[in-house]
Amino acid sequence: MMKHKFKSLAILLLCFMVACKDGKQTEKTGALLFPQGDKNTNSNFKGDVWVKSLVEPDSLNENAVGNVTFAAGARSNWHTHPAGQILLATEGVGYYQEKGKAKIILRKGDSIKCPPNLAHWHGASQDTAFVQIAITGRQHGPTKWLEPVSDEDYRGL
Amino acid sequence: MMKHKFKSLAILLLCFMVACKDGKQTEKTGALLFPQGDKNTNSNFKGDVWVKSLVEPDSLNENAVGNVTFAAGARSNWHTHPAGQILLATEGVGYYQEKGKAKIILRKGDSIKCPPNLAHWHGASQDTAFVQIAITGRQHGPTKWLEPVSDEDYRGL
Repeated sequence: MMKHKFKSLAILLLCFMVACKDGKQTEKTGALLFPQGDKNTNSNFKGDVWVKSLVEPDSLNENAVGNVTFAAGARSNWHTHPAGQILLATEGVGYYQEKGKAKIILRKGDSIKCPPNLAHWHGASQDTAFVQIAITGRQHGPTKWLEPVSDEDYRGL
Repeated sequence: MMKHKFKSLAILLLCFMVACKDGKQTEKTGALLFPQGDKNTNSNFKGDVWVKSLVEPDSLNENAVGNVTFAAGARSNWHTHPAGQILLATEGVGYYQEKGKAKIILRKGDSIKCPPNLAHWHGASQDTAFVQIAITGRQHGPTKWLEPVSDEDYRGL
């Protein structure tokens, strides 16, 4: 299962890198939009997740902007953001679900606005890795982490 | 001159669309990240600029997120944002300058945080179109527009 996830991610990354005809075009249009960053090591996620901070919050602009890459099958735990969050899907196929609502599918070019203090999770689809930009206001404190997403919720059954 | 700008933009867009080897890969990795949106018609910009709103601000999250495409040579006037702005460069080559500082070059993957109430401008480079995501807090009011960027400032002389 883990091997399958790595394979899916490797294939997706390889597609990004070699899909174009010559070296210059690969560099310009085929490479990753943002660096993949460091592999997550905390227990707020299941599966392989990489996070790259793009913009740190400060007292004048309290938005944090990060690039998050989920291997196929990887997802966050349920969680809330005290000032809400905006997600921009930039590659692959992902899932997003708010508590009490149906899971929705995210694809490159999709935008999501998650209201403050509303429990939700996000991650990659079962078969395809997913990359998103996350814009998270820090003015009311950090993310509050909740329980893991059950396999039933993840599959959307 | 206008013809040249259109030609540069057309070539860049064509590169995005046809750089990859097969139709499926083109759809996945070669197409534009976000729609180009509507052509700007106001006088706050010089040259051809397209704007697509991705996320509208509301009372719970006052960030506006937009995708802005500048044809080669196009740029904004000088302006300030009362709550600052974050720019994420997603394609092409662009320029960014804060009042009193040197112009800097932006390329795919670069991030900029512009402080509140600081006069600045941004746009495409002379020869290459530029695409950016703009994240703009609306909690302290709208953008304040100032004078056009002189050709000397634009060229960085």
